[in-house]
Amino acid sequence: MEHIKINLTQPLEWLGNKIRLLDQTELPAKEVYLDIKDYRDIVDAIRTMKIRGAPAIGVVGAYGIALGVQQIKVKGKASFLKELSTVIEAIAGSRPTARNLFWAVERMDRIAHSGKSVADIKRLLIDEAVRIHTEEVAATRELSKNGARLIKDGMTILTHCNTGPLAAPGYGTALGVIIYADQQGKKIKVYADETRPLLQGARLTVWELKKVGIPVTLITDSMAGSFMRLGKIDCVIVGADRIAANGDTANKIGTYSLAVLAKEHGIPFYIAAPTSTIDHSLESGADIPIEHRKSEEVTRIKGVRIAPAGIKVMNPAFDITPAKYITAIVTEKGIIRKLRVI
Amino acid sequence: MEHIKINLTQPLEWLGNKIRLLDQTELPAKEVYLDIKDYRDIVDAIRTMKIRGAPAIGVVGAYGIALGVQQIKVKGKASFLKELSTVIEAIAGSRPTARNLFWAVERMDRIAHSGKSVADIKRLLIDEAVRIHTEEVAATRELSKNGARLIKDGMTILTHCNTGPLAAPGYGTALGVIIYADQQGKKIKVYADETRPLLQGARLTVWELKKVGIPVTLITDSMAGSFMRLGKIDCVIVGADRIAANGDTANKIGTYSLAVLAKEHGIPFYIAAPTSTIDHSLESGADIPIEHRKSEEVTRIKGVRIAPAGIKVMNPAFDITPAKYITAIVTEKGIIRKLRVI
Repeated sequence: MEHIKINLTQPLEWLGNKIRLLDQTELPAKEVYLDIKDYRDIVDAIRTMKIRGAPAIGVVGAYGIALGVQQIKVKGKASFLKELSTVIEAIAGSRPTARNLFWAVERMDRIAHSGKSVADIKRLLIDEAVRIHTEEVAATRELSKNGARLIKDGMTILTHCNTGPLAAPGYGTALGVIIYADQQGKKIKVYADETRPLLQGARLTVWELKKVGIPVTLITDSMAGSFMRLGKIDCVIVGADRIAANGDTANKIGTYSLAVLAKEHGIPFYIAAPTSTIDHSLESGADIPIEHRKSEEVTRIKGVRIAPAGIKVMNPAFDITPAKYITAIVTEKGIIRKLRVI
Repeated sequence: MEHIKINLTQPLEWLGNKIRLLDQTELPAKEVYLDIKDYRDIVDAIRTMKIRGAPAIGVVGAYGIALGVQQIKVKGKASFLKELSTVIEAIAGSRPTARNLFWAVERMDRIAHSGKSVADIKRLLIDEAVRIHTEEVAATRELSKNGARLIKDGMTILTHCNTGPLAAPGYGTALGVIIYADQQGKKIKVYADETRPLLQGARLTVWELKKVGIPVTLITDSMAGSFMRLGKIDCVIVGADRIAANGDTANKIGTYSLAVLAKEHGIPFYIAAPTSTIDHSLESGADIPIEHRKSEEVTRIKGVRIAPAGIKVMNPAFDITPAKYITAIVTEKGIIRKLRVI
């Protein structure tokens, strides 16, 4: 990306026989790197959100399979393929909503059945994981460049959750667009929703924007509507975990509210995601499975209890924003417009 | 209130020479009662939100003046009145948005200038504070009864922040309506927004509803829109900190977003407040002063840092919901309808 001259912290690195992860649950307090040699620890890292963000999950899922395949000790091809499918199923079962994970798993699965020998397959799977990583980095670069066309000098942009390089290796998705536009010399300000329950906005987005020197103001999720009403927000840009064929988009819980609020105030509402997020097999958002996570994420913050014990909690990790609320979807292949019909 | 046979925990008690407060910052973990003898500690308790909720602030403000007047040792009426005005100004300066505080202070100030002797004034001010308390309790009873007419059997109600007896001595406002309808035998379910940054929903509303046995589900503020879209919410009812003459309403930050979302989904949006919350001197919500609180309320939860140090934060405690989004305002005198013009 010709304009980006800054160093962007990456969420993961493939080191041949292990995966190095930046543990995102420890940010921003500590930068802890984990060297993982067992694919089951990758499954756990995805589940516990040590690594998160749909594109990052896709990439680490692919590497997890590449790692798992090296752990298989049996020699016969049939037994090998059986153990490999256990690895693939474990990775695929780590989280249910992000399309990118299944997209990567399907690519890896195809390769697994294309090799002649066990040694062949082991090598091909590593190559494919590296290729997925490289392609996704390139996709975030291209989509950031495409999205930057939507950002005008002087704009104040609202974003939700975390969509920087930590979430999408390379340049990020929604935050990649912001970083790219900033590097073009456009004067941009960002409002970052804290994004309860897991506070990816407060912990990660603010940390990433601070590192690259883009002015950012942290607000609670509940403040976004009021700032729109007061004319403080020029556009909203967020990422996506899965996009159905009709443009309906699953993204971090709270996205739908922002889309409705943006519509009410006549503010553009953009989604930024690589095409690996699009699930052409699903007709609409109604078919996207939504992950429900444990109640402690709501009732405790960093281990501190904030609500009475034994209460009922709902904790969907994502919501669906119907396409009619979306002004445009930015991908590496271009900008899909005219979704919002109001 | 004929239907309420349950015991509702009250936020404060006047004990003649001191005020007993339930420290709401310690809830739900601990029920800590504070006996306060110095009016300056009342100012501090309001500022630090040991007691909060617009009607409760009005009542405790009146008692704070009654307490302060007893602390004045000078005998001459002129010097006495001078010290009294210091007390009144300190109480009035504790928080800026809730109308009820100024309403109570104005009543106390009128009484302060109606007494003949210093002893007279001291006695009259205590009487007036007790009268304000008694009247406000009666008002919450009547408004709860009025509001219960809007609640149908089987409804699922969304509420924000805390509006129970802790916030409005007696029966509460929005939560009073819910409690009253429940006592009428209507089967009601409640979704409670956690209400960042200070989590009054998670800490106080859930605690109060659990005590009275009304089914409640805790959600983050960002989930409300999604649950509306999924058809899980039948109406929204919240309290108010100040209502302008045209019906525009200041309430806890996040209220405005809920009102917009309710409109988008065709769901009634109700405000419940005693008439002491109405400020006839203000033409519209644009004139209501909004308190901005310190950034640590957003960047720390129970002392634990959740965002990088040294970042910019906005922390308005309230937002304005224009009257056009409000289906009805429930008061002790009746229900004001036809505000919402869409």
